[in-house]
Amino acid sequence: MLDLLFNGGEVIGFVAAFLTTIAFIPQVLKVLKTKSVEGLSLTTYLLYISGVFLWFIHGVNLESLSMIIGNFVSIILTLIILFFIIKSKK
Amino acid sequence: MLDLLFNGGEVIGFVAAFLTTIAFIPQVLKVLKTKSVEGLSLTTYLLYISGVFLWFIHGVNLESLSMIIGNFVSIILTLIILFFIIKSKK
Repeated sequence: MLDLLFNGGEVIGFVAAFLTTIAFIPQVLKVLKTKSVEGLSLTTYLLYISGVFLWFIHGVNLESLSMIIGNFVSIILTLIILFFIIKSKK
Repeated sequence: MLDLLFNGGEVIGFVAAFLTTIAFIPQVLKVLKTKSVEGLSLTTYLLYISGVFLWFIHGVNLESLSMIIGNFVSIILTLIILFFIIKSKK
């Protein structure tokens, strides 16, 4: 399993997935800290969560644990941001 | 080629890639329209562009045209956002 994960070019995909997944943690923290979503595009996060949800389904179909876990975390992070954007529009 | 792209589960990956790529167009338009990047996390976009750059490299290694084109577009969109965030910090 670890051999498969870290051989050849796969390590690049693994690091890429890790980076694009954790990237939204600082944005979530900023939203929580400032209690503001000013400047954040609702459409961007709606499109993004739709895409990430499909990546998650694709990962399930491919039985790729890294895709499943990574995209699941991305869905949670994006949901938090979306929650605050939609709340701010009320 | 089109057969390969649209058979079975691959279409899900294709739509997923399309959505997560175009997701940042509304964010770029919002930044250009409001001339403001308030609320956007610099760390998020630095991590995101690093990850997308690695996805691009991974796509080159795998000779996947959809990964190469999609991630190239994402790099351009993220670079525009980063340019305005860094400019605003000066």
